[in-house]
Amino acid sequence: MVEQTTSSSEKQDKKNASKPEKVPLAGITVKKADNISEWYTQVLQKAELIDYSLVSGCYVLRPRLYAMWEKVQQLFDVEIKRKGVQNAYFPMLIPESLLNKEAHHVNGFSPEVAWVTQGGNSPLPERLAIRPTSETIMYESFAKWIRSHRDLPLKLNQWCNVVRWEFKHPTPLLRSREFLWQEGHTAHATHEEAAQMALDMLNVYAQLLEDVYALPILRGKKSQGETFAGAIYSLSCETFFPSGKGIQICTSHHLGTNFSKAFDIGYLNDKGNHMPVHQTSWGISTRSLGILVLFHGDDKGLVLPPKIAPTQIVIVPIYFAEVDKKRVMSAAVKIRKSLETDFSVILDDREEYTPGWKYNDWEMKGACMRIEIGPKDIANEQVMICRRDVGKKEAVPIAKVKEHVGSQLRQMQKDMLTHATERLVAATVEVTTNEELLKALAEKKLIKTAWCALPECEAALKEKTDGAKSMNIPFEQPEKLLSSCTLCGKTATVVAYVAKAY
Amino acid sequence: MVEQTTSSSEKQDKKNASKPEKVPLAGITVKKADNISEWYTQVLQKAELIDYSLVSGCYVLRPRLYAMWEKVQQLFDVEIKRKGVQNAYFPMLIPESLLNKEAHHVNGFSPEVAWVTQGGNSPLPERLAIRPTSETIMYESFAKWIRSHRDLPLKLNQWCNVVRWEFKHPTPLLRSREFLWQEGHTAHATHEEAAQMALDMLNVYAQLLEDVYALPILRGKKSQGETFAGAIYSLSCETFFPSGKGIQICTSHHLGTNFSKAFDIGYLNDKGNHMPVHQTSWGISTRSLGILVLFHGDDKGLVLPPKIAPTQIVIVPIYFAEVDKKRVMSAAVKIRKSLETDFSVILDDREEYTPGWKYNDWEMKGACMRIEIGPKDIANEQVMICRRDVGKKEAVPIAKVKEHVGSQLRQMQKDMLTHATERLVAATVEVTTNEELLKALAEKKLIKTAWCALPECEAALKEKTDGAKSMNIPFEQPEKLLSSCTLCGKTATVVAYVAKAY
Repeated sequence: MVEQTTSSSEKQDKKNASKPEKVPLAGITVKKADNISEWYTQVLQKAELIDYSLVSGCYVLRPRLYAMWEKVQQLFDVEIKRKGVQNAYFPMLIPESLLNKEAHHVNGFSPEVAWVTQGGNSPLPERLAIRPTSETIMYESFAKWIRSHRDLPLKLNQWCNVVRWEFKHPTPLLRSREFLWQEGHTAHATHEEAAQMALDMLNVYAQLLEDVYALPILRGKKSQGETFAGAIYSLSCETFFPSGKGIQICTSHHLGTNFSKAFDIGYLNDKGNHMPVHQTSWGISTRSLGILVLFHGDDKGLVLPPKIAPTQIVIVPIYFAEVDKKRVMSAAVKIRKSLETDFSVILDDREEYTPGWKYNDWEMKGACMRIEIGPKDIANEQVMICRRDVGKKEAVPIAKVKEHVGSQLRQMQKDMLTHATERLVAATVEVTTNEELLKALAEKKLIKTAWCALPECEAALKEKTDGAKSMNIPFEQPEKLLSSCTLCGKTATVVAYVAKAY
Repeated sequence: MVEQTTSSSEKQDKKNASKPEKVPLAGITVKKADNISEWYTQVLQKAELIDYSLVSGCYVLRPRLYAMWEKVQQLFDVEIKRKGVQNAYFPMLIPESLLNKEAHHVNGFSPEVAWVTQGGNSPLPERLAIRPTSETIMYESFAKWIRSHRDLPLKLNQWCNVVRWEFKHPTPLLRSREFLWQEGHTAHATHEEAAQMALDMLNVYAQLLEDVYALPILRGKKSQGETFAGAIYSLSCETFFPSGKGIQICTSHHLGTNFSKAFDIGYLNDKGNHMPVHQTSWGISTRSLGILVLFHGDDKGLVLPPKIAPTQIVIVPIYFAEVDKKRVMSAAVKIRKSLETDFSVILDDREEYTPGWKYNDWEMKGACMRIEIGPKDIANEQVMICRRDVGKKEAVPIAKVKEHVGSQLRQMQKDMLTHATERLVAATVEVTTNEELLKALAEKKLIKTAWCALPECEAALKEKTDGAKSMNIPFEQPEKLLSSCTLCGKTATVVAYVAKAY
């Protein structure tokens, strides 16, 4: 176990110190580029985002992480309610026979279901699945509620936990056995309406991820082999880490009539004919926050875009003599008060740590901006302000702090997306031959290339390259494809993004 | 199964009607006083609050119910954040060995735990409990996070689902196997601080229940026999149904050092001694919404206080000739637009139903206020407004609608609490003899009486009266008790509320 910052304060206690001493910060001990998985583990724990539980693959989401999830919930909830989606809650436990109702779906999920078999001291008559996703339990109700075309469209969403008992090596947020998400489920009268809904929701996700997470997003359609179990097609938002791997963030599925036929969800159209509904489902989970941490962080720890950061501003008062303390603290409190109505701000008045220790601590925890204030600053009627992503200090007149902070936080949000997008663009190469493709993969590039889109071609690629695959097929396609499939030489049908997958 | 209103619209479809016909509303078919449990079941389904699932005791919370839960979440979240409580999320699955760590606690909960025993196709090495409550999993982390008195107080809360596999007859919301709740958990340096926290939280609940749910609340301490498994004492909010039964709504527990000793949660005080922390836990669940429905509803269906109602206002346009339609609809839309920024309002423009049908439908669904507008009203520059709780129509000038609606909704919120409180006061009797007590129970009264507070006395009462028990012991106690225990004749130590329990 890594030493916690709380252990440091325990050492302090023993000394019964009234003055701060040089307590070393238990900072990040590896460079991100050297060992990204160790870096990720340390950041999650030391920035107090995640803790481990006694069950492998199940993690505690600590307040600083959960606060980010609450922001995502608030922002996303406004968007879906604007689209006429209503929130609801369906039972978590799904009888095995119900889960088995749609054949592709059950094959996709049953290998990773956690089963409840006992209630109190009694065995249950039928195993109950903890929902890995809620299509089956929701659509059982949809079949009861939808009778007429007037009941359409039906648009529901739920915020909940799901369990997928994966047996791969678990990683907090990115691959955990329990996670939090929202899952939206809609039913429509026509294929086209459902297609529009699935696309609209993908665009809502993409905008959230770009505007709030500051992540550059590749929007597109998944290959046949990567389509959700039970969907006719899946759309996805993906991104590409500067370290050289692609990752799927969230998906939006067109389910066609696969489930409505299996669950008998139909309506009478205005001609009196019984018609199956056309459905969509779409979700984003706490996995997206793992991607956020992994993408933006640096060797000092977390870097968070202001729109999602739990702490936007930290104020660090500086004084070494008792005589300065009162003046400095009173000025610091005044600044906090002027900012706290508009920003999330913490005045770090802990006496047991030096200012330098606090700088490092809050850089590790990803506070977007630091305001330093000491006796000299007060004499000059200014403070020093340092942006987490840029790292340069700037003197700002006290009278202008609020204005400066507001404009710099907005700028930081923009800059983070701009720089992230530049890195993604710089990492992208278009290739037309198999040799170029293998070379680009070896150089950890994001590849754009002509592809046949056949499942057997993708399977061969995965095997040959130790895990490269198509990420998605972008919506913008060239009018005419100039080359054959870069991978297998057959007729190319699309241009796709290909990369090593996280 | 009860016929759904959606089935009615299906019949309409078959007739391909362009004019509304006299479709009978599938209203509530029993009187509340005649068969309250059937009334409750019908209201939950017909007002589209609840649907049944294939798993007994697990229910679908439909959008109109979930919207009420969202309001509770928003209002309560503001209050706890003001008290320095942070939201977090802990894993749902608890290893059996961890659940067993506090002896009283495990005895209280293990008979109703749902156990996960298989992950995918493999048996698990240890059974995992689906949380019935999260003391054990949270306090495992508390022990790691708390080192110094500077880490105290620690105040966390989570919004989540819990499962208690009860074997009694399940009832939606009131006794369901899965339910939603919040559970707050705090750790403090002293017994007194924890006592204050537990009391503060009880008062937050009581205020929420009075101000928003419009329920009259009995605040007090539970008897020893009714104390939470693992607590040193439990405080509760209770209410008393006009039908003659008492019910517990929510609780706040002082856990003392029971868990901190079992889980080794300690801190170094400023003298360098290792001390166990003093803890509290407190929760309110979707059960409170079942109580809300059961308490306020009448023979027509739901009656909801404006602060929690998903639909505060419904506008019903009235026209029989096509020539009137345009004028009426245009006026109705104007009114909707003037109200929708401040109130939740629906303009019921369904063409397949008559105005009278809509009145009944929205009375059943508990819209707080109905605005009727027809050609005659327009000629008189007025609308007719009807409050759900009072049921009298009033003509209001169109120019004054917004003002009227605002003041009447505020008045309705107040009136509902006033009337509910009056009914509770009227149902309360103070008794001093055993005979009076039994007579009052037979008359379905809420009883206030001197009591010894001994567990064996309470057990005897339950047996003798087929389920009467102490509800709680109010905080306001007389300075001197004038009589001995009404039940057993031993020395009385408290005045308590006694009633048949729901």
